[in-house]
Amino acid sequence: MIRLDGRATDQLRDVKITRNYLKYPEGSCLIEMGDTKVICTASVEDKVPLFLKGSGQGWVTAEYGMLPGSCETRTKRDSAIGRVNGRGQEIQRLVGRAIRSVADLNGFGERTVWLDCDVIQADGGTRTASVTGAFIAFVDACAQMKKQNICKKLPFSDVISAISVGVVMGEELLDLNYKEDSNAQVDMNVIMTESGRIVEVQTTGEGAPFTRKRFDSLLNLAQKGIMDLAAAVKSSLADVL
Amino acid sequence: MIRLDGRATDQLRDVKITRNYLKYPEGSCLIEMGDTKVICTASVEDKVPLFLKGSGQGWVTAEYGMLPGSCETRTKRDSAIGRVNGRGQEIQRLVGRAIRSVADLNGFGERTVWLDCDVIQADGGTRTASVTGAFIAFVDACAQMKKQNICKKLPFSDVISAISVGVVMGEELLDLNYKEDSNAQVDMNVIMTESGRIVEVQTTGEGAPFTRKRFDSLLNLAQKGIMDLAAAVKSSLADVL
Amino acid sequence: MIRLDGRATDQLRDVKITRNYLKYPEGSCLIEMGDTKVICTASVEDKVPLFLKGSGQGWVTAEYGMLPGSCETRTKRDSAIGRVNGRGQEIQRLVGRAIRSVADLNGFGERTVWLDCDVIQADGGTRTASVTGAFIAFVDACAQMKKQNICKKLPFSDVISAISVGVVMGEELLDLNYKEDSNAQVDMNVIMTESGRIVEVQTTGEGAPFTRKRFDSLLNLAQKGIMDLAAAVKSSLADVL
Amino acid sequence: MIRLDGRATDQLRDVKITRNYLKYPEGSCLIEMGDTKVICTASVEDKVPLFLKGSGQGWVTAEYGMLPGSCETRTKRDSAIGRVNGRGQEIQRLVGRAIRSVADLNGFGERTVWLDCDVIQADGGTRTASVTGAFIAFVDACAQMKKQNICKKLPFSDVISAISVGVVMGEELLDLNYKEDSNAQVDMNVIMTESGRIVEVQTTGEGAPFTRKRFDSLLNLAQKGIMDLAAAVKSSLADVL
Amino acid sequence: MIRLDGRATDQLRDVKITRNYLKYPEGSCLIEMGDTKVICTASVEDKVPLFLKGSGQGWVTAEYGMLPGSCETRTKRDSAIGRVNGRGQEIQRLVGRAIRSVADLNGFGERTVWLDCDVIQADGGTRTASVTGAFIAFVDACAQMKKQNICKKLPFSDVISAISVGVVMGEELLDLNYKEDSNAQVDMNVIMTESGRIVEVQTTGEGAPFTRKRFDSLLNLAQKGIMDLAAAVKSSLADVL
Amino acid sequence: MIRLDGRATDQLRDVKITRNYLKYPEGSCLIEMGDTKVICTASVEDKVPLFLKGSGQGWVTAEYGMLPGSCETRTKRDSAIGRVNGRGQEIQRLVGRAIRSVADLNGFGERTVWLDCDVIQADGGTRTASVTGAFIAFVDACAQMKKQNICKKLPFSDVISAISVGVVMGEELLDLNYKEDSNAQVDMNVIMTESGRIVEVQTTGEGAPFTRKRFDSLLNLAQKGIMDLAAAVKSSLADVL
Repeated sequence: MIRLDGRATDQLRDVKITRNYLKYPEGSCLIEMGDTKVICTASVEDKVPLFLKGSGQGWVTAEYGMLPGSCETRTKRDSAIGRVNGRGQEIQRLVGRAIRSVADLNGFGERTVWLDCDVIQADGGTRTASVTGAFIAFVDACAQMKKQNICKKLPFSDVISAISVGVVMGEELLDLNYKEDSNAQVDMNVIMTESGRIVEVQTTGEGAPFTRKRFDSLLNLAQKGIMDLAAAVKSSLADVL
Repeated sequence: MIRLDGRATDQLRDVKITRNYLKYPEGSCLIEMGDTKVICTASVEDKVPLFLKGSGQGWVTAEYGMLPGSCETRTKRDSAIGRVNGRGQEIQRLVGRAIRSVADLNGFGERTVWLDCDVIQADGGTRTASVTGAFIAFVDACAQMKKQNICKKLPFSDVISAISVGVVMGEELLDLNYKEDSNAQVDMNVIMTESGRIVEVQTTGEGAPFTRKRFDSLLNLAQKGIMDLAAAVKSSLADVL
Repeated sequence: MIRLDGRATDQLRDVKITRNYLKYPEGSCLIEMGDTKVICTASVEDKVPLFLKGSGQGWVTAEYGMLPGSCETRTKRDSAIGRVNGRGQEIQRLVGRAIRSVADLNGFGERTVWLDCDVIQADGGTRTASVTGAFIAFVDACAQMKKQNICKKLPFSDVISAISVGVVMGEELLDLNYKEDSNAQVDMNVIMTESGRIVEVQTTGEGAPFTRKRFDSLLNLAQKGIMDLAAAVKSSLADVL
Repeated sequence: MIRLDGRATDQLRDVKITRNYLKYPEGSCLIEMGDTKVICTASVEDKVPLFLKGSGQGWVTAEYGMLPGSCETRTKRDSAIGRVNGRGQEIQRLVGRAIRSVADLNGFGERTVWLDCDVIQADGGTRTASVTGAFIAFVDACAQMKKQNICKKLPFSDVISAISVGVVMGEELLDLNYKEDSNAQVDMNVIMTESGRIVEVQTTGEGAPFTRKRFDSLLNLAQKGIMDLAAAVKSSLADVL
Repeated sequence: MIRLDGRATDQLRDVKITRNYLKYPEGSCLIEMGDTKVICTASVEDKVPLFLKGSGQGWVTAEYGMLPGSCETRTKRDSAIGRVNGRGQEIQRLVGRAIRSVADLNGFGERTVWLDCDVIQADGGTRTASVTGAFIAFVDACAQMKKQNICKKLPFSDVISAISVGVVMGEELLDLNYKEDSNAQVDMNVIMTESGRIVEVQTTGEGAPFTRKRFDSLLNLAQKGIMDLAAAVKSSLADVL
Repeated sequence: MIRLDGRATDQLRDVKITRNYLKYPEGSCLIEMGDTKVICTASVEDKVPLFLKGSGQGWVTAEYGMLPGSCETRTKRDSAIGRVNGRGQEIQRLVGRAIRSVADLNGFGERTVWLDCDVIQADGGTRTASVTGAFIAFVDACAQMKKQNICKKLPFSDVISAISVGVVMGEELLDLNYKEDSNAQVDMNVIMTESGRIVEVQTTGEGAPFTRKRFDSLLNLAQKGIMDLAAAVKSSLADVL
């Protein structure tokens, strides 16, 4: 099967990473996975949440938003509604947990790294692009802290990236775009290290339950995609890793 | 290894299901997994969300809350804060998706089934208990609708239940209580049908990344737990299934 | 006149008090007045509101909520709306004032006792059941503080309980259930000590104004009911009073 | 005992009623009880709440607010906090109920009368002044509706007014000002018709419980005050009653 | 052209200033410009916003509100909506900036002067009346602080007032009332010192763009109005200036 | 005087306009004024606000936001706070008014054009860049509607753009960047048509009042800047104008 956009079933969309996209935050990038575009920033604050005060430990947390014009139909601003919607909450919690799983929270003092993922254009896979982009921005913020002697070494243990897989019309596909995603019976988001260790696996199955065999096969496909994506991430970060 | 509460590593806590716990909702139960207690109700409303109006299709949605006195330290009410917190949002979305994955949304007309999961006492595994309890309440609401000739047959395709597994001090454990959960390196929540098909798999990995082998082994353990739990659920629902 | 549920006009519904209903809060109970069921908890916090800091005095405050499935028609969650509704505000203020009127706020140091009343099932009289149940939970929290040597003696001066009375089809009735309450021309809530001293009297008269004679007669009926209810409360608390 | 401001124990403060204080609302007044000043307006809207649509019945509802500069210490605006505070909620519900108890809701079609009570200066008794002032504004709105042939006769059954009584240093006092109110052991708010029928009685007893005898005596004192106040209200409304 | 209310095109409405309108705030006035009536208060708080703590500098800030009954159609309360509306935000920011532009923030220690402008009746020009009234209340609060030796001299540099001008049916008019304002093609609000120095100029041009010549001419007209208004303000403040 | 960035006092920063920056909205652009970067989109919705229903008229409205990483110090999200802050409200109202002043609201049926201005990087002048960018996006949405035969001709009357001027250390400067803006004694924002007609003039004068002569001189400088900027805007829109 060849997909509408000509990709093979196990092929990533074009990955484009523009580091230091903004001038103020310690780390920032524009990550593009095909037509999905997310600005990710990492801002260092000399403060930690209350529950860590005096612990000597730092914190990493994430927030996620979508520009009103990023979707096919204009989406209402969270601020107009007065709260972050449920889907946004879920995604920002996911991004935070993912980066914390490889971050050395004891490695940069009582500081908070704020990761902001703002979707400029949404064409499927915004949550996985956010994880990958947030990691890159985080790495640049870490490099910045190292330069300022806040830390002796880069405070993270592994390179991570994230990808989605799914089943569309019976076919297992890597890196779904919006049209594919809308028609998926099964949808899985996977965050892994470059060495294939698992950080998070999530199925969002609105469709019907599926077999363990299918599950294993999808996880294999995701792992293949992670290998390709991790290569792009590492090459883009070559000067600081 | 024997656990603090004497259970084997692959043993569920005592499961207690009290159906028709409340008199007003179409379906309701109190589900107890050890000391974790959740009241689940299913209320049928003759209305659907805007996006389904005129479609002839129904909807299933869930909300989740914790009583202030349900935890070791009193938790603030969402209403005092003015919004549902992120964790609560995540869980209620999970419950809704899970039940929808087996519900026949075309089977009961333009109606919404509201699933409310309110944690009375929290000792680990409240999200999985909520899924299981919500399913039971949903079944009773379905039975009620059938009795009222709203539907000819029970509008769902499968029996589902949910359980957590995790790794504590290197050991893989089934159905973690709060103390175990707090010390888990890996945490996985699994929703499956009685026949072992997968509805949702979530790892919440705040800890370190882990191997695919570990992942597979945990999923096996979860599947074993689901078999035991599904038996309890089915026996409790014997009169309507 | 005999009522629909067979009670005499001056007869309470069955009162059932389950102390220590939950394991975490310092005090807790499930109070049932017929089909009205409220979980009341008393949680002690080592902190007082700003206006009492440094005063050496403690504080008692209450919050009230209803589970969505507690009423004939599902009620929206306060958290979904973003604030406590007016009726809930009124009731939680009433509960707080009532318990403070007998509490010795100088008797347990700079601590706050949070009283949470959560209605599981509502069949009339939830506000009076909340007062009575909150008092019981408060007593258990006091006993707990005494055991921990926070106070030398139980820091309250009197046993209180609360009951509603009303006029339905010209008849004065004690302890109205929901159906009676909906048809009441006059509705009165009374909080008293076991010795018949008045803590609060509230008429909620949506109906027509009524005579002073009627008022006095209703207050007498309420006093009779309080005597019965106080006996149940005291017997339930026999081991700590 | 003579009070700080020279009044006898059973004497009202100076009552000043300025009708038609504002030009837009159908009814409005500035009511002054000593230094307590409240602007009350009654605005007629050609719409009823959802639950009355199509019923042919009207509705009366009230809102209450305090100007930031109305109190000894500046109070924060509700709008800055994002919600009406508990005390305000309680009072506006009280005002609404009180007027509805004498209003003929079937007498003016499917319309809502909005009663707004805004405290300009607070020196005790703002809630009772609000009830009295809201009634006067309501009467003028009724007269307006009669003039416009919306109703044939004034749609209310009785003249009501409201007053507070309390016990200060053992003495029973009528119409407490702020200083007296702050020192009251017992506080009672009473709404009555001119003929002495009871609309609402509320004790707000933060202090110690008190005897039935005290209660009866306070209610008598309130009734005396209502007679005086009702005379002022009726004389002020002479042209429309 | 003579206007509907008989004024010349360059004539102010009747200006009435009642100082010390309320007894609690340090400064207060009722300002009336024709039928537009605004209560302005200035309350001194012994605290500054976080960003000024320890700076030795004070702060001046403003809030603006409208009573529900102040307009032709009842307006919803901000507190019922849960936030200050955009127009209110804009106006309160304007008032704050205006007074700060002449205030000596280093002249009264680490204190905040809260300026509250509450519109009792709105007939056009509420924002300019608010600026003028807020200035008068501010002066009285300054005088109060001087009396208490908080400051040696009155901490402001100039007398300011504000007025609107506009173009209605081709005619340039001073001090528009509501009817005129609704029909204005061009609307300009001007804040100036008594000596004609500019504090703020705002055009709110919903209509069509207009020429620079028109602009200059309107600004001249406003300056003329300010001279008249400043005279009234100064005469009213004669005892403290 | 030559400025820090080498510009002459009456020189614009580099203007860069990227039209059709996003694929979903009917109109969109990235506008860059030096380091200030704003994404502006225009989305057409087949619906008007309540007050225009059935009028046959359309509407134009704007919203404004800043990415958390757009400023020197990370800014909190409006959605985390639960409302748009005052400054944002002020700006989005300004943008809406400006575009409406040249839009032909009767020219595109009962539709709403949503203008969203999201600041990616803020280096002074975000509100004027937002106006200019919103106009460009609006033009493209108009062209789109014309292509779809919604309108016969482009529904606007004039080309507008916006620029800021100010006084820094006594010198009048055009198009202030952030550092200049922070040190400005006077700050003026001007929106004009290409022919020099005035749409809006706003001084934001936190500093001291200034003379009419200064005012006139600044307005002249702004007019000069508008001429340059309008040329850039028109050239960028050459294919549709």
